[in-house]
Amino acid sequence: MPYYKGLIQYDGSHYQGWQRLKNSENTLQGKIEKVLTRLLEEDILVHGSGRTDAGVHAKGQVFSFQTEKSLVKEAFFIKKVNQYLPQDMAVLEIAEMPSRFHARLEAVGKRYVYTLWRAEYAPVFKGNFVHRIHEELDLKEMKKASSMLLGEHDFRGFSHDKTKKSTVRCIKKIDWLETDEEIQIIFEGNGFLQHMIRIIVGTLLEIGLGKKETACIENILKSKDRTLAGETAPAKGLSLEKVYYDEK
Amino acid sequence: MPYYKGLIQYDGSHYQGWQRLKNSENTLQGKIEKVLTRLLEEDILVHGSGRTDAGVHAKGQVFSFQTEKSLVKEAFFIKKVNQYLPQDMAVLEIAEMPSRFHARLEAVGKRYVYTLWRAEYAPVFKGNFVHRIHEELDLKEMKKASSMLLGEHDFRGFSHDKTKKSTVRCIKKIDWLETDEEIQIIFEGNGFLQHMIRIIVGTLLEIGLGKKETACIENILKSKDRTLAGETAPAKGLSLEKVYYDEK
Repeated sequence: MPYYKGLIQYDGSHYQGWQRLKNSENTLQGKIEKVLTRLLEEDILVHGSGRTDAGVHAKGQVFSFQTEKSLVKEAFFIKKVNQYLPQDMAVLEIAEMPSRFHARLEAVGKRYVYTLWRAEYAPVFKGNFVHRIHEELDLKEMKKASSMLLGEHDFRGFSHDKTKKSTVRCIKKIDWLETDEEIQIIFEGNGFLQHMIRIIVGTLLEIGLGKKETACIENILKSKDRTLAGETAPAKGLSLEKVYYDEK
Repeated sequence: MPYYKGLIQYDGSHYQGWQRLKNSENTLQGKIEKVLTRLLEEDILVHGSGRTDAGVHAKGQVFSFQTEKSLVKEAFFIKKVNQYLPQDMAVLEIAEMPSRFHARLEAVGKRYVYTLWRAEYAPVFKGNFVHRIHEELDLKEMKKASSMLLGEHDFRGFSHDKTKKSTVRCIKKIDWLETDEEIQIIFEGNGFLQHMIRIIVGTLLEIGLGKKETACIENILKSKDRTLAGETAPAKGLSLEKVYYDEK
């Protein structure tokens, strides 16, 4: 059966996250599976590149699925899919892959953006997409702290993860984009643990507010102790921007 | 009493428009007047540069008011105002004016932007701020038609206005900004009648869809007959971007 790769955007505000749940209709994976199953008239199982949490957004989530039907790569099929999807979800592309393709297993990297709003007035046009900060932040210390996270580390202390799986990840890049109104923190890495970016941002914020020492980053990495890290920053500031795959 | 000039942004989605109404708490003018009245402990009357319709947004609405209190130009006062305003309104500036100032009477020009969404997928991150078009548009004809509107004309045929006041206005510029997803139509003029831009856009859309001839613009201007123009385009696509004043 041919493999398909899809590119999807969503405003995660009103969903319980990406992953399909047994007791809820209200997941992003559930919605897209339902539409594809209906249009292709067979049970379609969709794999996302990863599970975004409830309230997290995506500008470039990738998913994969299989079907024998050949119409799925046609423009009118994508149009149809979008007609059936809710208005806060949009499929931008569906492409047939030349070989086996699994959106999660084959992802080699991801880019996430966390957006802080620092203006003293409200984020009128993007209230659902930024985390508003009311106090002054010491950005110099936050940047210094963030640079300690670069490279390969065991990020268990920055994670919600309680499994026995490896919690070693590599953060390749943390960029900062600042305007008068916003601070975007851009994370690129080979993968991120559950809540990892939100806990990192929460910890950086506490450093920026003088509630934690910059050096605490090293302690959290070393001790792997979640309780030493900051609070999990709100989901709404986070967006999955891009998933990277090896180009073959 | 000193005069003050304020700059305000709002997402108009949940309001009954700018103008204060006797039977509704839910107007933009009403909200800002209420906050200023409360903070300054005197009845504050606010004048907007113009009345935006229900559902119309503003990135740069200007208002004026008078008070004896001198604290209103201080940063902490603006902060206070924003704390009391709803999250879909934001005051960016309040400045004391060197002389008499009335936001409406002294406005010499305005810039409005109407945004169309033409992608085949939904405007996930700005559903409230664009008007989605599902059909292909003949932009060349729309632009040609829009150029017929430039200059000074009696725009009564493109207006909701039933008063005896002059309906002569001058449109100085209509610019088109296109991306794969959006078409922005940017209007600059000395003033715009009620519903004027939305009726113009509605008419341009009917021309773009082949439902009206491009030449109909001249007929509507000449006849001043509202029934010859297109339907009023939805409010949510429209935003007041800037109000111009003579710099003295």
